[in-house]
Amino acid sequence: MAATRIVPLGGLGEVGLNALLVESGEDRILVDCGLMFPESHHPGVDYLIPDLSPVLEGPGRLRAVLLTHGHEDHIGALPHLLQELRVPVYGAPMTLGLVRERLAERAPSARSLLRAVAPGGTVEAGPFRAEFIRVTHSTADACALGIETPGGTILHTGDFKLDPTPVDGRPTDEAALARWGDRGVDLLCCDSTNAQRPGPTPSERAVGEAFARMMPGVEGRAWVATFASSVYRIQQVIEASRAVGRRVTFLGRSVVRVVRLARSLGHLRPAPGDLVPEPRSRGFPRDALTVVLTGSQAEPGSALWRVARGLEPHHRILPGDHVFLSSRLIPGNERAIHRLINRCIRLGARVHYEEVSEIHVSGHASAADAARMIGLTRPRNVLPVHGELRHLEALREVAVGAGVPPHRVFRVENGQSLVLEGGGVRPGPVVSTGRVYVDAGETGATQDALLADRRRLARDGLVVAVAVVGPDGSLVWGPRVEMRGVVPAERADAVAREAETALRSSLARRAEGLERPEDWEAEMALALRRYFRRSRGRRPVVVATAVEV
Amino acid sequence: MAATRIVPLGGLGEVGLNALLVESGEDRILVDCGLMFPESHHPGVDYLIPDLSPVLEGPGRLRAVLLTHGHEDHIGALPHLLQELRVPVYGAPMTLGLVRERLAERAPSARSLLRAVAPGGTVEAGPFRAEFIRVTHSTADACALGIETPGGTILHTGDFKLDPTPVDGRPTDEAALARWGDRGVDLLCCDSTNAQRPGPTPSERAVGEAFARMMPGVEGRAWVATFASSVYRIQQVIEASRAVGRRVTFLGRSVVRVVRLARSLGHLRPAPGDLVPEPRSRGFPRDALTVVLTGSQAEPGSALWRVARGLEPHHRILPGDHVFLSSRLIPGNERAIHRLINRCIRLGARVHYEEVSEIHVSGHASAADAARMIGLTRPRNVLPVHGELRHLEALREVAVGAGVPPHRVFRVENGQSLVLEGGGVRPGPVVSTGRVYVDAGETGATQDALLADRRRLARDGLVVAVAVVGPDGSLVWGPRVEMRGVVPAERADAVAREAETALRSSLARRAEGLERPEDWEAEMALALRRYFRRSRGRRPVVVATAVEV
Repeated sequence: MAATRIVPLGGLGEVGLNALLVESGEDRILVDCGLMFPESHHPGVDYLIPDLSPVLEGPGRLRAVLLTHGHEDHIGALPHLLQELRVPVYGAPMTLGLVRERLAERAPSARSLLRAVAPGGTVEAGPFRAEFIRVTHSTADACALGIETPGGTILHTGDFKLDPTPVDGRPTDEAALARWGDRGVDLLCCDSTNAQRPGPTPSERAVGEAFARMMPGVEGRAWVATFASSVYRIQQVIEASRAVGRRVTFLGRSVVRVVRLARSLGHLRPAPGDLVPEPRSRGFPRDALTVVLTGSQAEPGSALWRVARGLEPHHRILPGDHVFLSSRLIPGNERAIHRLINRCIRLGARVHYEEVSEIHVSGHASAADAARMIGLTRPRNVLPVHGELRHLEALREVAVGAGVPPHRVFRVENGQSLVLEGGGVRPGPVVSTGRVYVDAGETGATQDALLADRRRLARDGLVVAVAVVGPDGSLVWGPRVEMRGVVPAERADAVAREAETALRSSLARRAEGLERPEDWEAEMALALRRYFRRSRGRRPVVVATAVEV
Repeated sequence: MAATRIVPLGGLGEVGLNALLVESGEDRILVDCGLMFPESHHPGVDYLIPDLSPVLEGPGRLRAVLLTHGHEDHIGALPHLLQELRVPVYGAPMTLGLVRERLAERAPSARSLLRAVAPGGTVEAGPFRAEFIRVTHSTADACALGIETPGGTILHTGDFKLDPTPVDGRPTDEAALARWGDRGVDLLCCDSTNAQRPGPTPSERAVGEAFARMMPGVEGRAWVATFASSVYRIQQVIEASRAVGRRVTFLGRSVVRVVRLARSLGHLRPAPGDLVPEPRSRGFPRDALTVVLTGSQAEPGSALWRVARGLEPHHRILPGDHVFLSSRLIPGNERAIHRLINRCIRLGARVHYEEVSEIHVSGHASAADAARMIGLTRPRNVLPVHGELRHLEALREVAVGAGVPPHRVFRVENGQSLVLEGGGVRPGPVVSTGRVYVDAGETGATQDALLADRRRLARDGLVVAVAVVGPDGSLVWGPRVEMRGVVPAERADAVAREAETALRSSLARRAEGLERPEDWEAEMALALRRYFRRSRGRRPVVVATAVEV
């Protein structure tokens, strides 16, 4: 009997990196190929991608990449994949529009591989047949995937919520989901992000209503920071602004780009006169303009970050302005966002943000939405996806509460494969998976040791020592000690001289045993590490160089 | 007419560091003297304290330190102050018990300066007279201070909420607050931490009720992580455990220490048989033990951190256990806490935490509590304290909503002094204030440049170059390049050789102009910085040494 193997390469047990490999015989498809943004313990890292080697091995076996939607955590690693092999990439038009921009740097020629599929359309790839099913999410053209495979039927929700009143009037295609349920879903791969939250996720329209309520109270300029891809959010800001006689302009490269794309595809529909080009907006009366801009996560260099620092000559925050941070405070960014909020308040603005306002709702299914998804599709087995372990576990509880037998819910992490055969699912072998750091644009082998070095440099600083020894093994010059990041500059010289004294006396005691320069270097490093550990309780990185002349 | 000057040294506009200097003529008192914990952009820093030089200048002028309660952000900088000068320190017994432990390292002899004041008691210090007024908070013996000064009357709330049903049956002394209001409060310094939250803060008893509901459902061991100083939380965990036949033990040095102190003062009242010493608890049946432990913020080395990593040989998390994180997720710690939660789930535990459960309530006044404080004390002027700008601003709105004229609410930040004279308040001069980093146990001058170095080392790494030049200005040895934190170890040699080649050819072009070793060093650093910027888009720290032999 034909079997299908499902291998989660990323996204199960950590945030981002979503990539699910589906294999049968010699054929495979990949669902999504996302990145993850670095955290504070990843200094110097641009972003992280899944280890794609399981996808790359056996060239020609990959039949297609299917994309559920265009968020970075689902498409961001695609340029790295398409740099290595040519494979058709299927997605809805908005999704591919966002992918197209991402390909410019690494794989511009891969644009010819993009194949648009309208929601409702189907794709055949080897022995797999996939239907793109419209779902509601925070960006446009998000799709679930119903996939017929030799081992059984998979329904992958992508990122979704069940918004009963979506802004574009096009709700989740629940009829299609129910049809898949009628025919029999063997495995439901279900978004777990918000499964911890009770009840249904509120409609995106709730945010529009909040803006409509709040916009009349804004005396000065209205600043709305949100994710560029949140086109329904932007549409509603435009409508709330129109109602109070404000025109809307855009600040920040990504929002300008996405707005252009979304307008061309009809997802964003401003009325004539709603928008004003940024250069023309500069002289506008403060109460006649709304600025939609990037920077809701206080990203350094983003538009709001620049405005709050006074770095945008034509756009300043003044007393009477209101700043709306219309997005989630992503864990890890809170302190930077709080500092940004404080800056805006210092400039005289009133700031509305998620903790104290209702100007954001999530795009992910809460428990009631997830339970309803299970009710529509009636899966035999459930694989919670898209979350940390705490989210996967929460969806496990929702699924069991919705009647799925506990042993048929697979709360597994990256690398734990599942075998789908004759409609049943069982755990398969564990596949080696991992994360690859993209650092200064380069992908390397695993860089955990490099990051440990960087964290140690940051915490304990660095000591450099240089000595010159003669052919007779005597000290000709030095040792000279220099430091960075150990003590404040005004004390660095004094501490360095003390360290040199300690090092000299240590070398004097040991000089007889030191023959090659390498011996000198090892002894210098040892003595300095000891000195800084004893005198300051710190373990700086030590780089010692001994030159023989 | 006599005037009083109020100088906020810390805590206004940033978290922690609470310290308010009150001066009249030649006399002054200090209210609280707290620290701030480092954030991710403070690598290597132990903690931060306010710049205490305004307190230290004019020895003998400081008459007393008054402490509102014993949390680190109110007492943590006291050892640094008492290391420099001898001054009586007044506080309630629990507060001083916590201070006493903190003094051991820096100022053990200062213990003789501690003077206990029971809530309700008064203190005279120079021209100041202060009454300690009981308030409810998350730790025991918290007090507000009513202070008569030559320029007028100040009421400082300390950290408070108005808990109508406190666990120890001793609510905020609202009668005393009202008496101060009757006599006339010229300036209310009011805790702003939770002023953004509507309504009153729930009673601490709500947490006890949640534990009572949840404890019967715990099959295995119950683990409760909370702050050691949250003695009412611990009391309620003991009671909820008793109700289901569990005994309680403690893990983690600070919780053991604070429990001992709180028992000796009668704030924690276990019944006979409620507690079991940790060594005896090791063999207990899993369903007969609750472990109260440190680590609710996932602090490295804390008890829960160690247990979740399997580092506690006698205490392991097993399937069926429940882990309660009974505290706030402090911004900046979320990601570490989330990772800790995932670890516990991976070990088979069910985890309850603030985002998904009701096992924590705040100890700070929400808007309704703050409004009620204003109603009781009827202040002429209000100074929001204890918060970032966004919190101070929220309390400003609460105060205005409660009827205080807007121009009498002083939403100022650290260093902006206020002059209290004849019951009126006006802004005074701005005083130079700041934060001092405690780094490897040492306090330094401002270390912002040092931290910038460390952050750069972490982000871009480090390049060390050494060369030896002869008396004729020719290159005798090297240049040798070594790197740390720039590229992964397996590629470091290759990149170093490339950098050496680039450096050599750059030096060859410029060698004529290079005379002294300093010239060589400057040229080497310049060339290497250019090389790494162009080849990798990075700006590593470069340490170049040229030796002339």
